[in-house]
Amino acid sequence: MTGTLFVINPNSSDTVTEGIAEAIAPLRNLPAPVTCLTLAEGPPGIESQAQADETIAPMLALAARLEPEAAGYVVACFGDPGVHALRDRTAKPVLGIQEAAVATALTLGQRFGIIAILPASIPRHLRSLGAMGVLDRLAGDRALNLGVAELADPDVTETRLIETGRALRDLDGAEVLILGCAGMARYRATLEQALQIPVIDPCQAAVAMLQGRIALDQTHRPGGG
Amino acid sequence: MTGTLFVINPNSSDTVTEGIAEAIAPLRNLPAPVTCLTLAEGPPGIESQAQADETIAPMLALAARLEPEAAGYVVACFGDPGVHALRDRTAKPVLGIQEAAVATALTLGQRFGIIAILPASIPRHLRSLGAMGVLDRLAGDRALNLGVAELADPDVTETRLIETGRALRDLDGAEVLILGCAGMARYRATLEQALQIPVIDPCQAAVAMLQGRIALDQTHRPGGG
Amino acid sequence: MTGTLFVINPNSSDTVTEGIAEAIAPLRNLPAPVTCLTLAEGPPGIESQAQADETIAPMLALAARLEPEAAGYVVACFGDPGVHALRDRTAKPVLGIQEAAVATALTLGQRFGIIAILPASIPRHLRSLGAMGVLDRLAGDRALNLGVAELADPDVTETRLIETGRALRDLDGAEVLILGCAGMARYRATLEQALQIPVIDPCQAAVAMLQGRIALDQTHRPGGG
Amino acid sequence: MTGTLFVINPNSSDTVTEGIAEAIAPLRNLPAPVTCLTLAEGPPGIESQAQADETIAPMLALAARLEPEAAGYVVACFGDPGVHALRDRTAKPVLGIQEAAVATALTLGQRFGIIAILPASIPRHLRSLGAMGVLDRLAGDRALNLGVAELADPDVTETRLIETGRALRDLDGAEVLILGCAGMARYRATLEQALQIPVIDPCQAAVAMLQGRIALDQTHRPGGG
Amino acid sequence: MTGTLFVINPNSSDTVTEGIAEAIAPLRNLPAPVTCLTLAEGPPGIESQAQADETIAPMLALAARLEPEAAGYVVACFGDPGVHALRDRTAKPVLGIQEAAVATALTLGQRFGIIAILPASIPRHLRSLGAMGVLDRLAGDRALNLGVAELADPDVTETRLIETGRALRDLDGAEVLILGCAGMARYRATLEQALQIPVIDPCQAAVAMLQGRIALDQTHRPGGG
Amino acid sequence: MTGTLFVINPNSSDTVTEGIAEAIAPLRNLPAPVTCLTLAEGPPGIESQAQADETIAPMLALAARLEPEAAGYVVACFGDPGVHALRDRTAKPVLGIQEAAVATALTLGQRFGIIAILPASIPRHLRSLGAMGVLDRLAGDRALNLGVAELADPDVTETRLIETGRALRDLDGAEVLILGCAGMARYRATLEQALQIPVIDPCQAAVAMLQGRIALDQTHRPGGG
Repeated sequence: MTGTLFVINPNSSDTVTEGIAEAIAPLRNLPAPVTCLTLAEGPPGIESQAQADETIAPMLALAARLEPEAAGYVVACFGDPGVHALRDRTAKPVLGIQEAAVATALTLGQRFGIIAILPASIPRHLRSLGAMGVLDRLAGDRALNLGVAELADPDVTETRLIETGRALRDLDGAEVLILGCAGMARYRATLEQALQIPVIDPCQAAVAMLQGRIALDQTHRPGGG
Repeated sequence: MTGTLFVINPNSSDTVTEGIAEAIAPLRNLPAPVTCLTLAEGPPGIESQAQADETIAPMLALAARLEPEAAGYVVACFGDPGVHALRDRTAKPVLGIQEAAVATALTLGQRFGIIAILPASIPRHLRSLGAMGVLDRLAGDRALNLGVAELADPDVTETRLIETGRALRDLDGAEVLILGCAGMARYRATLEQALQIPVIDPCQAAVAMLQGRIALDQTHRPGGG
Repeated sequence: MTGTLFVINPNSSDTVTEGIAEAIAPLRNLPAPVTCLTLAEGPPGIESQAQADETIAPMLALAARLEPEAAGYVVACFGDPGVHALRDRTAKPVLGIQEAAVATALTLGQRFGIIAILPASIPRHLRSLGAMGVLDRLAGDRALNLGVAELADPDVTETRLIETGRALRDLDGAEVLILGCAGMARYRATLEQALQIPVIDPCQAAVAMLQGRIALDQTHRPGGG
Repeated sequence: MTGTLFVINPNSSDTVTEGIAEAIAPLRNLPAPVTCLTLAEGPPGIESQAQADETIAPMLALAARLEPEAAGYVVACFGDPGVHALRDRTAKPVLGIQEAAVATALTLGQRFGIIAILPASIPRHLRSLGAMGVLDRLAGDRALNLGVAELADPDVTETRLIETGRALRDLDGAEVLILGCAGMARYRATLEQALQIPVIDPCQAAVAMLQGRIALDQTHRPGGG
Repeated sequence: MTGTLFVINPNSSDTVTEGIAEAIAPLRNLPAPVTCLTLAEGPPGIESQAQADETIAPMLALAARLEPEAAGYVVACFGDPGVHALRDRTAKPVLGIQEAAVATALTLGQRFGIIAILPASIPRHLRSLGAMGVLDRLAGDRALNLGVAELADPDVTETRLIETGRALRDLDGAEVLILGCAGMARYRATLEQALQIPVIDPCQAAVAMLQGRIALDQTHRPGGG
Repeated sequence: MTGTLFVINPNSSDTVTEGIAEAIAPLRNLPAPVTCLTLAEGPPGIESQAQADETIAPMLALAARLEPEAAGYVVACFGDPGVHALRDRTAKPVLGIQEAAVATALTLGQRFGIIAILPASIPRHLRSLGAMGVLDRLAGDRALNLGVAELADPDVTETRLIETGRALRDLDGAEVLILGCAGMARYRATLEQALQIPVIDPCQAAVAMLQGRIALDQTHRPGGG
């Protein structure tokens, strides 16, 4: 196995990309080096299906440029825009952060909860979970309902994350939580300590699974490429 | 209700668009006039998720140009690429042909079968049906497995459609069939006669449902635009 | 296509039938003329499975009398009593208002809520939704819990509809609502404005879909009668 | 517990009723006496949803006459016509033979197969199984496809039952079979011996469960009647 | 049919075994005599999957000793530990109390609620219900959340049972309740009277179904042993 | 992260354990060292639920002895006996090979097929998949149907694996295959080459996921042990 594991953040926020890089640091070189990239053509944040879908074409183009040096790809937007499309274009392993977080959650508790940023994300999540066929394992999906200014304040965000996670745990029956966004990893450990149930950062989940796949040379198209 | 019902064929084949226009002719002006358009930026045919996803951005741009005169939109590619994205951009009613065909099939028999053009389309269909939450109603999804030359021959295609539909009916238990493609409407009546179960052309299903929605002024975002 | 689309109200309340006629007025002659009929043998209101089932035999008899002039039938009782039985007796298109409302809701939001008149209706609804295979799309089903006197007061009813719909939207996550009764169409627009999510009147949904089917000459038994 | 367990055969065939009586003989007086009755108003055989639904009103009337001496009721038609309606009319325990057979099958193997008389029965079965929420446990539902003359010949019927059961076991993965009809009990033991998997007669399953309910005085409406 | 129906309580509490014996008294000799046994090697109470699994080997050993005189077995721990294992070891009929309670509940209301002793039991229940394929019928599963001292106080327990059952009925929509434990039968009738919906004791449900199976000589392995 | 990742083979075959050790060699020290152990108390092979369940108590005892030096545990028997029980006993990460293989398969194709050794394993698999809530993703589960002598012959086994995998791919629609046994890893690459779809060895899948979890210090019980 040679090559780099590329994590593509399809929004254009370098701050989010830096947060991802920090989150996945413990997984670097296990076995592949990891590079986190920002999609320049992406919107500052992905808040709708339209915005998500519009990142696909430039993401595919970016991946095509990375292909010679790639060991595999993570698409780092909850909702997994373009993941199946990228699988059509490369034989190398590809993971979306939502599917990886859910696959991980299935082995950490009987019902998982998702913490969404915005209420409008929830129908998108439900469509993805339905396509994955795992709705029976969903305890609930609740949104933070914070405005931009509030999200910029870490204390407000942390407080709201704990409140939302507590509702998922106590009212909906979640035994494990998924952070429904690429940029929240810094709150993961605090939230886990506060609620005493596992909390999954989806970028970590995806990079962890992809590293294993790279180590095993396991791809979705044998003999491809 | 004023404005035109636009049917957008996201592949670039005018022949397919003409076939759609012919298929939906009985639904014109009930109540809205209908115009069928070809997406110039689309591929000649949509054979992969990547190709489907790449049509979304230009399709959204086309719809934005049509918006002032639109009564509503049908996206005429089985798989419904961009349908949810378009709903983010307009308050006018939007339907995909797959979702409309499935919604129609639910009321014509207990289990529906889908006739796919290519085997590679089937996983895409299954993801969409999972997202729709209707997999318990699926009898089966079988591909024609015809090459380009064979598809160009109407007699070969018709024979293969009947064979495939018969397998769905007799081996899989389908009581109603869906043509899993925008360009097959000309075979619908023949297939229905041969197999004696209802056969749904998805473009007809979508335009029929959308005309009703236009007549009722029913949209997905009340008070929108 | 010739003939009349008959909407059969299986309860004996002419007031309900008149409300239906008013609700579906925008769909008349698109393409078929529509006639709304009251089932004289029905109970004043259908409040139990026993009452629903007892309407089937006289409804089938009425439909048999209408058959020569019928283009198709809508059975206008939420719960769809006798819809499958009527399909056994005629080759002409038949729709129940519950199945049509649900099929419509599937394309207007990811999860739908149902507003029931009585708590006792909810298990009936759940059985029908289970038979339709669409329970994964149900956000919730909540009853108005109003007595006869209160239901006769439009202001009380409207207030309670909005409260119930708000609970379905805010507590259960519904993105679209279905009025779970044939006689509530007059409140549809008000409710939609108040809650800002689509609200479906099931009689409108059924007539809209059936008009499309009549226009396309699409039936559930090709070559039938 | 006093009173008689009434088994109502909603078709008008006394031969079928006699076969039921013979089948449930081992369950008599455990604890209640059992009387098997023919519904005079029923059709000679129930072959469609329309025929099934038309038995409900006279069946309810018959049950009303039996009510003073009844300990409980079994409705002995696969498809369970009128079972929920009868529960609306009596507080005494009521079971349909399809629901009881399925409940029993759930504890005898992971996937059950159903042997239907007619292909047209299968969609009815699927609707009931969907309403019961147990479709994930269904291996398959296959019809005997025998004409009236052939069904009258026990040797032909037995041979065809074994062929159909073998297909359910070997092709569909059934670990337990359900006879999808009230009149086949005489073949149960032979079929079970031939295939070496459990075979359930639905009338036996219903009477067995109902006897337990009568012994426990367990009803669906506490404090009723 | 000869032999005794053995009910094995896999915890080591004779008080629980006595409660079971009292609960199933109305089912004795209908047709088989019933003997309730305590598993000496079991823990005082089963509160985790580990404890449940550790009872299996000694329970199988006990059943092997009982085999010559057994007509069938009930494993009397909600969660059904070892039920499938015991079916591997005997051809005689075997039922778990959870599966029997659920099978019974399916015919007493559209959605059932479960009253668990401990919150930690709920994921175990959900796994079993998922394996049974009946999650669509579950209204909710709520725990009593009582400590040992409180559970020892019948008045406190009864009050809390009613509160929990009311939440399942009124907030979750349960039409029928299941006592999620082998030792609560003494509260069944009171709870049923208080809430006016059926309440199932799982040991009663299992013995009732097994008596029917014994009467019919119905086993899971025809021709076995 | 310190400690060893222990893979426990709950059958007593050292040959199987050696095969596992070879299979997971590419995952050693990424980051944890891996030790594969045989459960001396296990049966030579696990062919029934009873045998699987009887391994749990000694497996828990073995894990208790390993606990001081453990970084985490894989239970290497398809069917995952004792996995939830072990989670009750340790806060360290625990994975079963079936759940890990399935979680992996969810991201490699829309429908997965399972190759079972014995037909009798299939109901066990189905119960586990039902408990996992992923049955909608299952294409099929087919057994090799080889006797002991034939399984000892690698050529016969390989030929039969390819035949079985081809049936899962071509008749059942599997896009990815899972080897339903701990001892088949040596055939993985050949099978993948022959069928041109991904083939998952479940031990590899479990060790890969667990290594990621160890690297991230992600457990199922935060703050535990």
